[in-house]
Amino acid sequence: MAFSPLTPVFVAIICVLIVIILKGSRKSSRKEQSNASHKTESRPWVDEDLKDSTDLPVEEEDDGEWQGLDDNIAHVSFSTERYAEEDMLKRSKAFYELLNKRRSVRFISDEPVPREVIDNVIKTAGTSPSGAHTEPWTFVVVQDAEIKHKIREIIEDEEEINYKKRMGDKWVNDLKRLRTNWIKEYLDAAPYLILIFKQVYGRLPNGKKKTHYYNEISVSIACGILLAALQNVGLVTVTSTPLNCGPRLRVLLERPTNEKLLLLLPVGYPRKDATVPDLTRKPLEDIMVVV
Amino acid sequence: MAFSPLTPVFVAIICVLIVIILKGSRKSSRKEQSNASHKTESRPWVDEDLKDSTDLPVEEEDDGEWQGLDDNIAHVSFSTERYAEEDMLKRSKAFYELLNKRRSVRFISDEPVPREVIDNVIKTAGTSPSGAHTEPWTFVVVQDAEIKHKIREIIEDEEEINYKKRMGDKWVNDLKRLRTNWIKEYLDAAPYLILIFKQVYGRLPNGKKKTHYYNEISVSIACGILLAALQNVGLVTVTSTPLNCGPRLRVLLERPTNEKLLLLLPVGYPRKDATVPDLTRKPLEDIMVVV
Repeated sequence: MAFSPLTPVFVAIICVLIVIILKGSRKSSRKEQSNASHKTESRPWVDEDLKDSTDLPVEEEDDGEWQGLDDNIAHVSFSTERYAEEDMLKRSKAFYELLNKRRSVRFISDEPVPREVIDNVIKTAGTSPSGAHTEPWTFVVVQDAEIKHKIREIIEDEEEINYKKRMGDKWVNDLKRLRTNWIKEYLDAAPYLILIFKQVYGRLPNGKKKTHYYNEISVSIACGILLAALQNVGLVTVTSTPLNCGPRLRVLLERPTNEKLLLLLPVGYPRKDATVPDLTRKPLEDIMVVV
Repeated sequence: MAFSPLTPVFVAIICVLIVIILKGSRKSSRKEQSNASHKTESRPWVDEDLKDSTDLPVEEEDDGEWQGLDDNIAHVSFSTERYAEEDMLKRSKAFYELLNKRRSVRFISDEPVPREVIDNVIKTAGTSPSGAHTEPWTFVVVQDAEIKHKIREIIEDEEEINYKKRMGDKWVNDLKRLRTNWIKEYLDAAPYLILIFKQVYGRLPNGKKKTHYYNEISVSIACGILLAALQNVGLVTVTSTPLNCGPRLRVLLERPTNEKLLLLLPVGYPRKDATVPDLTRKPLEDIMVVV
């Protein structure tokens, strides 16, 4: 690994950072007589991507609002569709009912799905807001059977390492469930695998690194819009964050080092025999507080 | 801070974790001859919330797939609306065209908006998937004028501290643009402010802390669905991540310490004189790669 020799230094830096952060928050939480977590206290300053060093400039430029930061950009007048109140009610209810039918489905049919639909779904995800309009996302659509299978091999292989070397005792007594999660047929069966990469930094015309503010939040928001777009056309997926597979999958798909895998979504029609766990969702009163 | 006495132990644990991770990644990246970043390599192990101590158990339980983890839960058969291919194309195109009209708008009218519409929009956000179905979100809807103004005071106050104490030289020469970002009229004007909190951990019936896997990604995905639901009813917002205001706003809104502010969305109709920066979006070929 490029910085292997630097590893000790690196660990030291991280430790120091952590200490500083903890100190900082102790001070500020005293100030406000609340035991605010240092994590959020320092949210914009110590976002996880800081460990890349690429996001250090964030706090020097981010104004907290997601707008293009170019001063010279022209402003144009804006208007949007205005619906009558009863239409708003109808539309809001219909959209809720559509999305409330969405479930994470692991039983995906191998029936083909029109590529143009996938293109439109990804174009829709691309309308997401992003920190300083950096649009820090890459959607890799895998339809090649061989590459899909290689992806499956990498993921099942890592799952095995997770099990044999990385798991706590809890899981040793839970082999059965784990096995079911080990086998990921849908990675071969789904007509498309969409791998969503966050670009932790970009490049300026002068070749310098360009900060991508809140790139993980931005790309996750885009994925929310993508999930809504899939549900809107009757396709299913399961949101997955392949444990420790990011770099191997990045290399397999020949993505540059500034791109990090965030999510993997197998996409297709549900299988006729598809089942889902019989889960319920929290009622509104458990997720909303009105002040 | 609750665990101040534990801080040294804590730092030690984190260092050990980091070392293990770096070792692990060195091994696997040698295997793949790439200089993979340790950051993503260890993504699931060193997620930013790890610094809360609440996410330490993640790697012991997370199977990388976002499903309810309860073994005993029943599985039920699943089916979904199946559209003809041409209908899928029409629906995918129409949804893209609707969302592509969305813009971040800071000129929000004070006209009232029906509460029931906001309820439906938040119910829709609540259909989002989440790590292990933890649903780690709280949507605080502020309609009280006095509290909206207090929120504005906190945010503008912090912006001032950002400017005077936290900014690099870059911004000293950029007072003008900053001022425009300092003044946040919409925080008073918008009929609703939706503050989205991520629950970095929950509580089990036995009172123990319950890990909330990938809570930031989960809540961000829910926000993407929320933005789509707002656009669907003709309401506008601007996605904002108030710099360093989280703890003060959490205290103002009397949210528990396990909740951290992720985003603040002022919601309403656009003002007649609303303008937006004349930005364009990347074309599909710049955000999608097909393999």
